[in-house]
Amino acid sequence: MNTPSKQSEPLAETLLVVGVGLLGGSIATASRERGLAKHIIGVGRSEQRINQAIAAGILDAGTTNLAKAAEQADLIIFCTPVDCIARDVIAIHPHLSESCIVTDVGSTKGEICQQVDTALGKGKHQFIGSHPLAGSEKTGFEHSSSDLFEQAAVVITPQSETPESRTELLVQFWTAIGAKIHLMSPEAHDKTLAMTSHLPHLVASALAASVKEKDLPLAATGYADTTRIAAGDPELWTSIFLQNSTAMLEATQEFQQQLKAMIEAIKQGNQDHLAALLETGKQQRDSWKKK
Amino acid sequence: MNTPSKQSEPLAETLLVVGVGLLGGSIATASRERGLAKHIIGVGRSEQRINQAIAAGILDAGTTNLAKAAEQADLIIFCTPVDCIARDVIAIHPHLSESCIVTDVGSTKGEICQQVDTALGKGKHQFIGSHPLAGSEKTGFEHSSSDLFEQAAVVITPQSETPESRTELLVQFWTAIGAKIHLMSPEAHDKTLAMTSHLPHLVASALAASVKEKDLPLAATGYADTTRIAAGDPELWTSIFLQNSTAMLEATQEFQQQLKAMIEAIKQGNQDHLAALLETGKQQRDSWKKK
Repeated sequence: MNTPSKQSEPLAETLLVVGVGLLGGSIATASRERGLAKHIIGVGRSEQRINQAIAAGILDAGTTNLAKAAEQADLIIFCTPVDCIARDVIAIHPHLSESCIVTDVGSTKGEICQQVDTALGKGKHQFIGSHPLAGSEKTGFEHSSSDLFEQAAVVITPQSETPESRTELLVQFWTAIGAKIHLMSPEAHDKTLAMTSHLPHLVASALAASVKEKDLPLAATGYADTTRIAAGDPELWTSIFLQNSTAMLEATQEFQQQLKAMIEAIKQGNQDHLAALLETGKQQRDSWKKK
Repeated sequence: MNTPSKQSEPLAETLLVVGVGLLGGSIATASRERGLAKHIIGVGRSEQRINQAIAAGILDAGTTNLAKAAEQADLIIFCTPVDCIARDVIAIHPHLSESCIVTDVGSTKGEICQQVDTALGKGKHQFIGSHPLAGSEKTGFEHSSSDLFEQAAVVITPQSETPESRTELLVQFWTAIGAKIHLMSPEAHDKTLAMTSHLPHLVASALAASVKEKDLPLAATGYADTTRIAAGDPELWTSIFLQNSTAMLEATQEFQQQLKAMIEAIKQGNQDHLAALLETGKQQRDSWKKK
């Protein structure tokens, strides 16, 4: 889908962003710039931070009371850690207006959707998962950017019971802030992201843990790029890995097989086979650049 | 060591760069800019390419005849693949003037030094290994940059038989083009670089080989950074891995242990242990940034 021109009609009367950090702040800013909501409100844990976000012009209003804010909202987007989302989606359910749509930006989808289904009943809730593949090492709404989602992939994971009109509104919303939409099941999302995001993070962390501080004066750009994401928040990534453990373990098996084949070729001094294995990696990496 | 001001006295009458690509071209350009040699000549496989480098003002003169060029040189720097260096260092030995110093830019040092020692006798040759930790995905002298070595680490690997005055000249040369010098044995170099450079490359390649093309539309910056170096030349890296196989295999053992510990913690759902392992990776990565 292409990036549309600026909306003339708002998609939501009141947009509620839960967790006003880099992602939440960027969603608020992008929505305001494109006229996607009449009111943009935020919920955070710290009253002081919420007031700072209001003062910065990111939010129209804010509170630490999630249930109260949820009552007023037409579209709610959870930008909180993956292991908090289902719990809070379940908690606000009794407070929602009938037409309200609830989504999130979590990096895992299967576990969250399953927990919500189990607690509220399949097809009896207003949650549809989203996952924008956008972010930064920077944290906090101070680093918000209204074009963070320009050309970013956003996965939306409707379930068979999800009314099409609700999925369509989410598609319109993410498209309007610049994203390219991918519709898939929560399970397919988790399997794919295990390979393209969670496995790279685990590998980068294991690599960063392997290279000792004494050797770092002789680490250059190769080391720096390969390990950059290992500087991410350990608690946040622990939650992601554990929420997506089944697909993660499959992904690690694939990686370990590739690595073992390369190690074996080094052991045997098998130049042709080693070059062929590296060539496979190169070709697949090069094919990404063309996208 | 600090970056010095521009040299007033050239360090070499004639500098010979063997292999005029990105690194060779950058050494030539940096040397010219800093007045480090009166004449800068180059050797390449292709007469046409050498003539282009002369036309581009990178070389004063050039040839495809290595032995003939070597006769005129005071300082020779091999910028050719690691598995060609020792062979050519040995081949030019009879053609060298007594005071000539021969070095290289290869990513491995032990195997090269050992082959030269074996062929010419320890302490009976004019070769001292160098390894500048600088480069780019770009290739060809067209991408030469006179500041490629500014603040880059350069390892010089003198052996116990190497006259100090010769090591000192190499230190002066690399320092003059902006590098920070590390003196160590060829073996210590290979062990350290196995961890900080060769292991990251192998891991990036195995990761790139694991993530299939169908999943790449959902690969974002984490994937991109972690796998960037997998796009490097497979033949060049095959030679590096095989030349440094002993240290490489040790490095992969360390990495596999770290990875296995993380996988085990995911399997067991051990949140605290997994977070602690990721924290170790984060801390070591963060300590690099401070350097």
